[in-house]
Amino acid sequence: MVATREHVEADTRTRLLASTATLIHAGSYQAVGVRAICEHAGVQRGSFYHFFASKQALVLDTIDEMWKAYVDEVGSCFDSSLPPRERIEALFDHAYRTHSEIREQTGHVLGSPFCNLAAEASTLDEPIRDRVLGIFDEWATLIEEPISAAQVAGELDPTISAEDMSWTLLSALLGALVVAKAANDTTFIPVVGREVVATLWARAAA
Amino acid sequence: MVATREHVEADTRTRLLASTATLIHAGSYQAVGVRAICEHAGVQRGSFYHFFASKQALVLDTIDEMWKAYVDEVGSCFDSSLPPRERIEALFDHAYRTHSEIREQTGHVLGSPFCNLAAEASTLDEPIRDRVLGIFDEWATLIEEPISAAQVAGELDPTISAEDMSWTLLSALLGALVVAKAANDTTFIPVVGREVVATLWARAAA
Repeated sequence: MVATREHVEADTRTRLLASTATLIHAGSYQAVGVRAICEHAGVQRGSFYHFFASKQALVLDTIDEMWKAYVDEVGSCFDSSLPPRERIEALFDHAYRTHSEIREQTGHVLGSPFCNLAAEASTLDEPIRDRVLGIFDEWATLIEEPISAAQVAGELDPTISAEDMSWTLLSALLGALVVAKAANDTTFIPVVGREVVATLWARAAA
Repeated sequence: MVATREHVEADTRTRLLASTATLIHAGSYQAVGVRAICEHAGVQRGSFYHFFASKQALVLDTIDEMWKAYVDEVGSCFDSSLPPRERIEALFDHAYRTHSEIREQTGHVLGSPFCNLAAEASTLDEPIRDRVLGIFDEWATLIEEPISAAQVAGELDPTISAEDMSWTLLSALLGALVVAKAANDTTFIPVVGREVVATLWARAAA
């Protein structure tokens, strides 16, 4: 196959996004500059601005790509053929598996890239704060579905606000990832997952 | 009173610590350099290294000072004369009040400085990761006390691991602060606090 100009451009853009995701996740938003991203991606710095107006624009697109990849991966956790409780357990299991693999590969628990960006960049970069908030909102909506399903199935107290509870579970997951990052130890993730699920399902329908 | 050299030195050191806490909390670890800290503190850059070997050393001491201040403030939340459930509620109330005040003053929800440092710097700076982990450990120990007390009082299922539950509650609190920072809206904090407490106390002693 002859590489057309479109192919090369798509490949260059994809490499820039992948390098940004890797470098920011391993380091931080501010620790990584355009020069390092271009070097990692094997892209001439001069052609960077053909694809992205700024590092911020690149990071915004990277956030979207990381979120798409995350949703593809966890999609099976939200398979509506699974019992609702297992879907929530699968979400924490997925986090444990993913972050344990990353630790094996890099030596570090890197945490959630969305959570890291929220913690680091929210006060420094308004468009990034806003994009991450949009992702948290979609994430909470994903989590809300099995909670509502458990209420419909008579497993959970129907007076619980599924929306408030979904933000609570998301908070517990994000917090567990921060603790795991500080500890460089993923075993905090299933501990929190187990307690969250056991506790929530104790709040059974009366 | 005549300012002795000791007084002046103690004051300079205190100003450097206070400026570091303020600037890093408002920005990030990497966004703030020694020059900006000295300017904010009104300290000659040349005399900085009389007090601290490096920015890292300054930040480690700042973390300790911030933690001391936090424990002084939330001490009343852990007053053992309060019912255990109210102590946990008071912890989230304290976070809501504190971060709402900061938002009033600065226009931004800044999040937990410990959580921000864990998320930003854990993979970049091992001594800072380790110091923040020590603080998370002390924080979880503070939270464990009312959980154990509620078990002794027959309010909570005695088979719950108070230690695991304390890390779960800490995760929920840290995660709520990250979400509040991304949303620039503190109302997530009491929502999560209310759901955490209502859910945990539904896991009553059988």
